[in-house]
Amino acid sequence: MTRKIRVGIVGGTGYTGVELLRLLAQHPKAELVAITSRKEAGTPVDRIFGSLRGRVDLRFTSPDARELERCDVVFFATPHGVAMNQARALVEAGVRVIDLAADFRLRDPAQFEAWYKMPHTCPDLLAEAVYGLPELNRAAIGSARIIGCPGCYPTSMQLGLAPILEWERDHPGAIDCGAIIADCKSGVSGAGRKAEVDYLGAEVSENFRAYGLSGHRHHPETVQQLSLLAGKPVGLTFVPHLVPMIRGIFSSIYVRLGTAADLSDADLQALYERRYAGEPFVDVLPADCAPETRSVRGTNLARIGLRRPARDLLLVLVVEDNLVKGAAGQAVQCMNRLFGVPETEGLMQIAAVP
Amino acid sequence: MTRKIRVGIVGGTGYTGVELLRLLAQHPKAELVAITSRKEAGTPVDRIFGSLRGRVDLRFTSPDARELERCDVVFFATPHGVAMNQARALVEAGVRVIDLAADFRLRDPAQFEAWYKMPHTCPDLLAEAVYGLPELNRAAIGSARIIGCPGCYPTSMQLGLAPILEWERDHPGAIDCGAIIADCKSGVSGAGRKAEVDYLGAEVSENFRAYGLSGHRHHPETVQQLSLLAGKPVGLTFVPHLVPMIRGIFSSIYVRLGTAADLSDADLQALYERRYAGEPFVDVLPADCAPETRSVRGTNLARIGLRRPARDLLLVLVVEDNLVKGAAGQAVQCMNRLFGVPETEGLMQIAAVP
Amino acid sequence: MTRKIRVGIVGGTGYTGVELLRLLAQHPKAELVAITSRKEAGTPVDRIFGSLRGRVDLRFTSPDARELERCDVVFFATPHGVAMNQARALVEAGVRVIDLAADFRLRDPAQFEAWYKMPHTCPDLLAEAVYGLPELNRAAIGSARIIGCPGCYPTSMQLGLAPILEWERDHPGAIDCGAIIADCKSGVSGAGRKAEVDYLGAEVSENFRAYGLSGHRHHPETVQQLSLLAGKPVGLTFVPHLVPMIRGIFSSIYVRLGTAADLSDADLQALYERRYAGEPFVDVLPADCAPETRSVRGTNLARIGLRRPARDLLLVLVVEDNLVKGAAGQAVQCMNRLFGVPETEGLMQIAAVP
Amino acid sequence: MTRKIRVGIVGGTGYTGVELLRLLAQHPKAELVAITSRKEAGTPVDRIFGSLRGRVDLRFTSPDARELERCDVVFFATPHGVAMNQARALVEAGVRVIDLAADFRLRDPAQFEAWYKMPHTCPDLLAEAVYGLPELNRAAIGSARIIGCPGCYPTSMQLGLAPILEWERDHPGAIDCGAIIADCKSGVSGAGRKAEVDYLGAEVSENFRAYGLSGHRHHPETVQQLSLLAGKPVGLTFVPHLVPMIRGIFSSIYVRLGTAADLSDADLQALYERRYAGEPFVDVLPADCAPETRSVRGTNLARIGLRRPARDLLLVLVVEDNLVKGAAGQAVQCMNRLFGVPETEGLMQIAAVP
Repeated sequence: MTRKIRVGIVGGTGYTGVELLRLLAQHPKAELVAITSRKEAGTPVDRIFGSLRGRVDLRFTSPDARELERCDVVFFATPHGVAMNQARALVEAGVRVIDLAADFRLRDPAQFEAWYKMPHTCPDLLAEAVYGLPELNRAAIGSARIIGCPGCYPTSMQLGLAPILEWERDHPGAIDCGAIIADCKSGVSGAGRKAEVDYLGAEVSENFRAYGLSGHRHHPETVQQLSLLAGKPVGLTFVPHLVPMIRGIFSSIYVRLGTAADLSDADLQALYERRYAGEPFVDVLPADCAPETRSVRGTNLARIGLRRPARDLLLVLVVEDNLVKGAAGQAVQCMNRLFGVPETEGLMQIAAVP
Repeated sequence: MTRKIRVGIVGGTGYTGVELLRLLAQHPKAELVAITSRKEAGTPVDRIFGSLRGRVDLRFTSPDARELERCDVVFFATPHGVAMNQARALVEAGVRVIDLAADFRLRDPAQFEAWYKMPHTCPDLLAEAVYGLPELNRAAIGSARIIGCPGCYPTSMQLGLAPILEWERDHPGAIDCGAIIADCKSGVSGAGRKAEVDYLGAEVSENFRAYGLSGHRHHPETVQQLSLLAGKPVGLTFVPHLVPMIRGIFSSIYVRLGTAADLSDADLQALYERRYAGEPFVDVLPADCAPETRSVRGTNLARIGLRRPARDLLLVLVVEDNLVKGAAGQAVQCMNRLFGVPETEGLMQIAAVP
Repeated sequence: MTRKIRVGIVGGTGYTGVELLRLLAQHPKAELVAITSRKEAGTPVDRIFGSLRGRVDLRFTSPDARELERCDVVFFATPHGVAMNQARALVEAGVRVIDLAADFRLRDPAQFEAWYKMPHTCPDLLAEAVYGLPELNRAAIGSARIIGCPGCYPTSMQLGLAPILEWERDHPGAIDCGAIIADCKSGVSGAGRKAEVDYLGAEVSENFRAYGLSGHRHHPETVQQLSLLAGKPVGLTFVPHLVPMIRGIFSSIYVRLGTAADLSDADLQALYERRYAGEPFVDVLPADCAPETRSVRGTNLARIGLRRPARDLLLVLVVEDNLVKGAAGQAVQCMNRLFGVPETEGLMQIAAVP
Repeated sequence: MTRKIRVGIVGGTGYTGVELLRLLAQHPKAELVAITSRKEAGTPVDRIFGSLRGRVDLRFTSPDARELERCDVVFFATPHGVAMNQARALVEAGVRVIDLAADFRLRDPAQFEAWYKMPHTCPDLLAEAVYGLPELNRAAIGSARIIGCPGCYPTSMQLGLAPILEWERDHPGAIDCGAIIADCKSGVSGAGRKAEVDYLGAEVSENFRAYGLSGHRHHPETVQQLSLLAGKPVGLTFVPHLVPMIRGIFSSIYVRLGTAADLSDADLQALYERRYAGEPFVDVLPADCAPETRSVRGTNLARIGLRRPARDLLLVLVVEDNLVKGAAGQAVQCMNRLFGVPETEGLMQIAAVP
């Protein structure tokens, strides 16, 4: 389109909300027209987020405002369960919906209900919703009416495993699909901007712990997607840990090799490099280079490193910024695809290091 | 006394509460007999604070439990306004009360009401309450029925200013009492263990800001005490800042000198060293040595460094651990005094550095 | 100019170096043509700074390479004392020099020698060098051959004090010029990318301390500039502190008011707002808004808040990113000015919060 | 013995050195008599470590000083390769040697030489040296002349795996001994107090990365010990990661179960609890409780949590303080054992949380 994409955001007071604002305020092809928040209606956005002073001069509006229907696309940066209740009206008004929460991630409504403890209110829309991971689902995204963006951990695990699972699909027995282990670590912004004692600075600083040990909602989502990639059921052990830093996910993924043990290190490296050749946001590092979260902080990049601790073991190390490639950046990448602008538009920030 | 001091704690789920528990669990002369929490009644203490596993085997009890009256002393590690409502019954039952909140700090009930937005419910007890800063008020503490422990910032400012203010009291005009500036910095545990977005790890990490700019409750308390020390009204500018670390207060205090400008650096150094000679918990550093918060982390120490940026300006640098010398440690020091055991009992931890 | 500005960087392995690289790699009017490092000659830049993979494909070259003379401008991101030895050849070859170190900051060579413990090797060039703080020195920067960029702390102090000192210049006695106190706090990247035990992560984390208590090199520089602003000698007490975070300076500046005490809060607020109206990189916050370092992290902004703790005391709070507005960003801003492109070119990043 | 144990420390300026000092200064049965440092000879200890002011009044002495031979025990808190050169003289003088470095960890001198790139200079002493992990080697420690204390990571992995490996030894095939994965995370103090750019605060903060990916020296040590426990060769994948915090190790260990898959969760829990019943420094957490590093910070404890992500997979989570149970605390525990004082003497600190 020749005019700018008219963008609305529902629920802009959380971390994915402010990250959308940061990215969209700098996006040459997008125009922020509405941002809603029940609690902060009337408040200038830059009063909540001082970093946006001089760059975003909107006020939060009440979420029932009609103005969302005048948008080309509406992002939901809301808690789980909100988007599914507002999506139908928007879609019927011709507005594209991009949900950053979980309402449109799990294909099976029963699974959604089991993990999110609420009925799914629009299974028909769920059925047509598209999973918003462009590197794995580009074609479908372009013509979607509703996009369910992946969770932050699932993004890192899928990008880290796609090449070897696609290999397995074509070479059954290449790996042990039933015994994948993903030892994942996330910065504390992953917990969101919610008042909870467990995520106070005094609680999370100078501490490291595992969590979600009795089951994490990103597990069924990831298993669903990995199984699609492998063309068969995948068994995944997923153990998330909390890192005393703000942003970043580091996933250490252990894949037991079957016949793929016959591949050389160089073969595996080449497999990954080929898979992501041409992808602007996935960087397969050279064999002697190791990923670190800060190298992608504030950016839409995932970087992947491969190691071979034993002949029959592949170690895939993936880093991403949980709020960008793991959330808001990916959502903007989907928007770009949806409106036919280059996927990289507005997403080429370089990490500020140190 | 020959038997152990029987100790109760009201409101043990906050940071000053767990710090009292840590100190008292290791105290050779104290015995923890009750710890209350309305919200956590029935929960084992070590389920909330895993660090106490194997060392504290109490459960939280309901705060109205009678068992508090069987204690020798009860600490209130509660929000402001709780202690004043429970103190009378305890005092009448012969139990000493040590309040870590603000109920018994401000001598003037009207001032309490102005700053804490609630009426003071026992002005008569307030009148007899003793300000619990042993280095400045040792005699009175020994025979008190109710002790109001100082705030964390006020402790650092009073310890840093006492020697020069006492000099001023004896040498009027020695300093400009109307123009003291205290630029103070505190770790985030000072905000307490309350669910608030402003103190989330993702909010406080990698950030530095001033706060309380329109007035902080520790200001009237400090002015009250400094004026007592100087024997005249003191004008104090107090600017608190939030440091992205868990524990520690660093107060940089600027005192404009009057006739004291005639004192040499060595004179001023000697003035401070003499004042605190024999104090086990106040360490006046040599002139070529600078304080840092980590050197007192987890300890009941304050360390003080002096500098002379200009002939007529004294810079006093004070460090303390806000949860120990600024709260729980000081309270235990008062308890020791109260029951005639050495003030250092149970309080001689060394900071773990790094 | 119609073609891109050809840029060289000497000493690109430090923090100001990588920050220049980050900014210039995204600058639409600049082209990086050479980056030197004696130690890393031959190494690809992205091997030292993984964050630049895919964005900077240069290798470090030996610093004596001739290619610097083919640049339009050369930035020195080197230790003190390097630029002054290479500047003459470059200037004579028609290359503009922008030094991020201290070689061209202090007008008086004797003062340079006293503070930096080395003779100044080109006092004639020093005499013509221009102090690179655009908001205070815009005209001279445009035609300079050599620019000495301000230190990080001096930038924050000058921006925070310029309006009131200029008022003093026009209204002598408005403030007490002899008693300004700047209590400044900096993140650890200010110490540079040098292997020193004092700046190890295990040393600086969870700690707060003052430093430079016997004199800091930014003191004479700041006094020199403040005195120019006030039109008379200024007495400054400057106390730097180290904050356990990577980036950011927070300066709390206390100005004792003389006749300016008659100005209302609104007058002072207006004075500052007028002074910086139209400045894209200085943001005077509304009276009820307080600055925090994260709101300018990674950006070229300074934000300023004003408070009035007492009738005769003005408190100026200034935040900046020490590596951007305090170093590399300011240098690029000077470059923009020098080559007639808009000052904001390549410098409009928004802080990633949280 | 009735008199105090006379203790010397060689190399007291690193992190394990200062931690020994902290522990020994509070130890009721030990007396610090000498601490050496080539570089700091003559400097008071409390000038390097301000936290020890008032508690340690020794000066560093030159390491060749004769006074070490008047000690009962000498700790080496030195780089690898130092202890082996001084051990013989001390042992011959009747002094017990406890090395915190790697000189006496690897049984096979060839392996030492391969990993530490230096010849072992006293293979005969190595042959008699005892591995200092009391929970696994208590008897031998009591009568040792030379103790090689375990590395920090190996301590966590051995404590986490001992019960299940001992089960395997008695029930061959219980687990897959060839496929153990230990995904370990350590705070930055593990890198020591050495001036290195990679461990600067600005480098390690707000970053997470794996390291040692081409081989870590703790790998052969751990494999040696695990194989002893299992009574057969153990195949271990060990991947260390660096956490932006000062202290703490968190090891997530994945054990693929063979016949042990028939054990219930409760059986496995009981197996661990039985193994460590009576151990004062190993705490097996209840099944619904998860370990976190801060709960052992500054203490000599390891805490272990067990999970069962799949029927045939055991997840063992182990936390310890790398400088205490992973180094200095364990060394003091060995000393206690060696001199017949209770192992807990001087080691009962409680973690300061938050």
